[in-house]
Amino acid sequence: MGRSIAELQAFLAPHLAQPSDIPGHGEAGSYAHNQHQLNYRLCDASGMLYQITGEQRYARWAADLLTRYANVYLLLGFQKAKNANPAGRIFHQILNENIWLLSMAMAYGCIKDTLDPTRREHIEGQLLRPAVAMMTELYAHDFATIHNHGLWGVAAVGTCGLVLGDERYVAMALDGLAGDRLTGGYLAELSLLFAPSGYYIEGPYYHRFALRALLTFSEALHTHRPDLDIYSFKDQVIRTTILALLGTVYPNGCLPALNDASLTMGIGDDGLLMAAAVYNARYGDDPAIHALARQQGRVWVQPVALSLAAAADTLSSDALPMWPSVELSEGPAGDRGAQGFLRARSSDGDITQVCMNYGQHGMDHGHFDTLGITLFNQGAEVLREYGFARWLNVEPKFGGRYLPENSTWASQTLAHNAVVVDGQSQNQGDRERADRVHGLPHFFVGTGAVQGMSGFANDHYPGVGMQRSVLLLSHAALKAPVLIDLFRLRSDSEHDYDYALQYSGQICDTTLPVSYNGQQWSALGEASGYQHLMGVARADVQHPSRLTWLQGRRFNTWLSAASSGELVFAQLGANDPAFNLRRESSLILRQRGRNHLFASVFETHGFFDEPSERCYGARGVLTELRILGHNDQGSVLELQGGGLHLLLMVSNQPGVAADTEHAVDFGGASYRWTGCFDCQELGVAPAP
Amino acid sequence: MGRSIAELQAFLAPHLAQPSDIPGHGEAGSYAHNQHQLNYRLCDASGMLYQITGEQRYARWAADLLTRYANVYLLLGFQKAKNANPAGRIFHQILNENIWLLSMAMAYGCIKDTLDPTRREHIEGQLLRPAVAMMTELYAHDFATIHNHGLWGVAAVGTCGLVLGDERYVAMALDGLAGDRLTGGYLAELSLLFAPSGYYIEGPYYHRFALRALLTFSEALHTHRPDLDIYSFKDQVIRTTILALLGTVYPNGCLPALNDASLTMGIGDDGLLMAAAVYNARYGDDPAIHALARQQGRVWVQPVALSLAAAADTLSSDALPMWPSVELSEGPAGDRGAQGFLRARSSDGDITQVCMNYGQHGMDHGHFDTLGITLFNQGAEVLREYGFARWLNVEPKFGGRYLPENSTWASQTLAHNAVVVDGQSQNQGDRERADRVHGLPHFFVGTGAVQGMSGFANDHYPGVGMQRSVLLLSHAALKAPVLIDLFRLRSDSEHDYDYALQYSGQICDTTLPVSYNGQQWSALGEASGYQHLMGVARADVQHPSRLTWLQGRRFNTWLSAASSGELVFAQLGANDPAFNLRRESSLILRQRGRNHLFASVFETHGFFDEPSERCYGARGVLTELRILGHNDQGSVLELQGGGLHLLLMVSNQPGVAADTEHAVDFGGASYRWTGCFDCQELGVAPAP
Repeated sequence: MGRSIAELQAFLAPHLAQPSDIPGHGEAGSYAHNQHQLNYRLCDASGMLYQITGEQRYARWAADLLTRYANVYLLLGFQKAKNANPAGRIFHQILNENIWLLSMAMAYGCIKDTLDPTRREHIEGQLLRPAVAMMTELYAHDFATIHNHGLWGVAAVGTCGLVLGDERYVAMALDGLAGDRLTGGYLAELSLLFAPSGYYIEGPYYHRFALRALLTFSEALHTHRPDLDIYSFKDQVIRTTILALLGTVYPNGCLPALNDASLTMGIGDDGLLMAAAVYNARYGDDPAIHALARQQGRVWVQPVALSLAAAADTLSSDALPMWPSVELSEGPAGDRGAQGFLRARSSDGDITQVCMNYGQHGMDHGHFDTLGITLFNQGAEVLREYGFARWLNVEPKFGGRYLPENSTWASQTLAHNAVVVDGQSQNQGDRERADRVHGLPHFFVGTGAVQGMSGFANDHYPGVGMQRSVLLLSHAALKAPVLIDLFRLRSDSEHDYDYALQYSGQICDTTLPVSYNGQQWSALGEASGYQHLMGVARADVQHPSRLTWLQGRRFNTWLSAASSGELVFAQLGANDPAFNLRRESSLILRQRGRNHLFASVFETHGFFDEPSERCYGARGVLTELRILGHNDQGSVLELQGGGLHLLLMVSNQPGVAADTEHAVDFGGASYRWTGCFDCQELGVAPAP
Repeated sequence: MGRSIAELQAFLAPHLAQPSDIPGHGEAGSYAHNQHQLNYRLCDASGMLYQITGEQRYARWAADLLTRYANVYLLLGFQKAKNANPAGRIFHQILNENIWLLSMAMAYGCIKDTLDPTRREHIEGQLLRPAVAMMTELYAHDFATIHNHGLWGVAAVGTCGLVLGDERYVAMALDGLAGDRLTGGYLAELSLLFAPSGYYIEGPYYHRFALRALLTFSEALHTHRPDLDIYSFKDQVIRTTILALLGTVYPNGCLPALNDASLTMGIGDDGLLMAAAVYNARYGDDPAIHALARQQGRVWVQPVALSLAAAADTLSSDALPMWPSVELSEGPAGDRGAQGFLRARSSDGDITQVCMNYGQHGMDHGHFDTLGITLFNQGAEVLREYGFARWLNVEPKFGGRYLPENSTWASQTLAHNAVVVDGQSQNQGDRERADRVHGLPHFFVGTGAVQGMSGFANDHYPGVGMQRSVLLLSHAALKAPVLIDLFRLRSDSEHDYDYALQYSGQICDTTLPVSYNGQQWSALGEASGYQHLMGVARADVQHPSRLTWLQGRRFNTWLSAASSGELVFAQLGANDPAFNLRRESSLILRQRGRNHLFASVFETHGFFDEPSERCYGARGVLTELRILGHNDQGSVLELQGGGLHLLLMVSNQPGVAADTEHAVDFGGASYRWTGCFDCQELGVAPAP
């Protein structure tokens, strides 16, 4: 806490000597935009530091800034709206204006006692009340709606209410404009925004953003409205939703980019600093949260974070928090699919994480990536998300807003680790259609040497049922867990199935007969994301194959069981006239069929450190994956390599339970197992 | 020193419990190859730790390994040679075997006293003496030659001599097989390998490698042959050559990749740890070396490093060492051109560095990049080297050896920041021809607000004279120094001039009318590196232009004065059948002319931090660069933007001195200056 306070002081220090500039209007990423953002952060810091230190200079500085904003606020006119979000007086979006207002109100609350009635009157009458009026009257239609933007509105207006002692504001914020605690307002948000699992439909990137507002206001209510007992509200929904967000976090602290999201957002964000502090103080001391705080390296500068800071300081190791494997249900009733997260540790302590989406489309920010997966280990995402196509706050890039390629590439099925059917994205790329369907959980086993999860998506392509099952296998013959991926499609008619993988790095080695497009690369298609991929090379697939690429200091090997079709090596860059896309790489395994199984294993292995020129393990341990058979009851595979010889059996039967018996015959042999999946050791001889 | 010893102990600790495996033969990057490398490092560590701690377990462990190598060494047979370097018994190259031998001999010296005569006899007679015999008899033609490989041979054999007390070995090592101290041997290496400036012809990557052998042996001689006074030899050539290597180092500690080199080699290498320790102890305590040791974070575990370690421990800041701007002459007499390095600090303490090659071709490892430059600031190379096309020790990539693309791309003129004439590399891509010519220094000014260097290269393209002048400009209107780059060509006939830039990152913004190849990319040519570039986009150049790209967290803007020709946007990847090349980006400004000037300014600006979503300064301060004129006397330019308006005048006159007067008339105006260059402030009105 001392270090975090010192950071806050260091942040404010260079600005204390002179009044902070209050500019007019500007684009996102412009000086004016940045300066207004800086101002609210400085004002907030100044108020908080006055409370902590009692030093008048902090109070004076905040008062000066508030006063000067009050001088000009009503004279600024309105900004231009740039999207569906109405324009504020300072920012293009009232979302930003609410963020600004929340901090300004908190700062005012901290220093209000140092001001005479005239100055209070000025700040309240010319700044805070007009801002509240804009939010709740001019933009009443937008206020307190059930949405992450709504949370910012109620937190800002509610905090103004608490600071000004205006019960009407507090009531509007808590209960909504209709006063029914149902159609709007903070309590309705808490009740309706999250699934029973605590998952937030727009994904972690928006979740942590929503938590900033949610937790700032919950702390204010905890202090000023203890009668609400906010932390017990709705079976401790705040506890549940914090845990749900933490349940998604990658081992390096980044948030998986489910839906539109940056690839770099993570536990350093204020939302997650707040979440750690609130959880630990309000729901009980937790060693995993202490480890998280250590990983964060900072705490929220609020009294609520004191106990967490003290606990983190006593930790003797930097061991990362190991969040358990978890399946997070989606939808208000938890019956609209789920997001699955499997985690396992390797012998060197590294954590492997697999995420799979078998839940809902993420509303406006959703991608057409149901049954998409990502794989993370050794500090990097191996099977990758592209993230959003947006350079947030980089003004020359379309004012920092979402770029056209967010729709044409980032949200398409092809841009994910998923299967594209007949060259078209799921739900025909139609958001409204996508919002109406969802995945179906099949099984989830989050403990043991072999963990697994499986889901169906039968409503995403007409006439095609899809099932993806992933196993995370730990084994004595392997230094680290490997991912086994079975993507199965069912249809009465033939379709083109493109199994797509997004990777980063350089290909080292493959058993495939690669034919490289030396002289010319052409766009792979005209729509659904194919128009952005250049075909770099291709290979005819005739046998199960191996392909290895180096990503940073680690090698990744993909074992594919496919013995027909073709593999396309592709790179982003086609039809990108404004250079908006990164030059990432894709692999597309292209097969045609009715009932079809894509079976793959992904092994991360070895080490290459260029500065010291050391390398080992450039070849993986696993050598071959074979499909023995699959039908509507189950899929059976054989995996070999390096002293490992396994029979893998996975249930394809809806409604499978731990005691469900399976018996299938493939190639003259019978295979039997009980439950969702089984993994049997075979001898040196081939499968029975 | 304590930490470095602890690291050495931790490195050895997991191996102490059991004897280390001694395998047979293997490829580079294979288990066998890696294990032999590990063994000599472990043996060396074990011997040194015995000397430090006196613990018998260390001596026993080293003795065991030496004995077991002695058991098998003569039975192993010879490896297969994979290149011009003869094969050893353990490694493909005797270079590796000498490295191994040097460490084994040092370890033996450390623990010899603990062994009875029979064991000594065994190790000496079955291991060390046969190895020396192989080097000096079987491979006599290769021993002690004037080359970095030669240094390893003499260091290994000489150290064997000192350890075994065999004066004959020491004499061969010091004086060469001919005993003349001229045609071979350590003293001849010291006399002949380096230019008077201390620069090593193959470049920093090989220099630091040579220093490992050179300094290991110099320390041994300092202790055991004080009569030689090795650190005074040839006017302290060891001091000079250490300083020369340090004079090349980028602010982040990496070595610029002049000639074949990895992009990541740097001050963490043993050669530079040794250099720091030896310099500080033998040539006087130096605050810059203390700062270097702090940046290195480790010291060489040898008594010579004790004083440096103690001094670095007392430093109160992590300020990076600021090496001065320096011009390093090339050739035995210092008259074969030079390598120039300019450095300047920005207001935030960051160091900008520009390197220019106007010296020699780097022998076998040379690239055709005379007058090539690189630019480094804010922790990254902005105008970039590709480095070598080699995955060192990555066995699946051609056994870790140089890849074909090292010749076809990495060493070509196009792969550098240089001008390609008529689509062909310098010296027709002929190494022997390139070895016969060199650049000519024109001027070098390494201090002041405007630093500058200039060189000619008149023998690299038939009928075309080239001159490049770069200025590093610090100015009150700029937060950081900017690079001004003037590449001038002279010819009696018309030629195609391609001004090439290698960059990394994403283009944000440009004033050029870009025409993007949306559907198809084609290879730009058939040879000289063009066969590896795909054409991504192009633009007709009609006015001075600006182009900005984001690299990591910084924006870089290129201002070009060109008002004709075309700009080609290209990417590596064509004709790369084994995926050996990284997907880097190039810009090629293509113009046709006789006497022609490419004039550019490079400004690094702003900041974008995606995790915190903060951005500022996405647009640079500078807006336009214009050529007012150029002739054989001088070039005159006008630079504007953000409260800055400058007239830049640079001498093109061979033999220019500080008092040379220049007077030129362009466009009806006269420009006068004295000396190599001048930079005059202009008012708001345009140039006179």
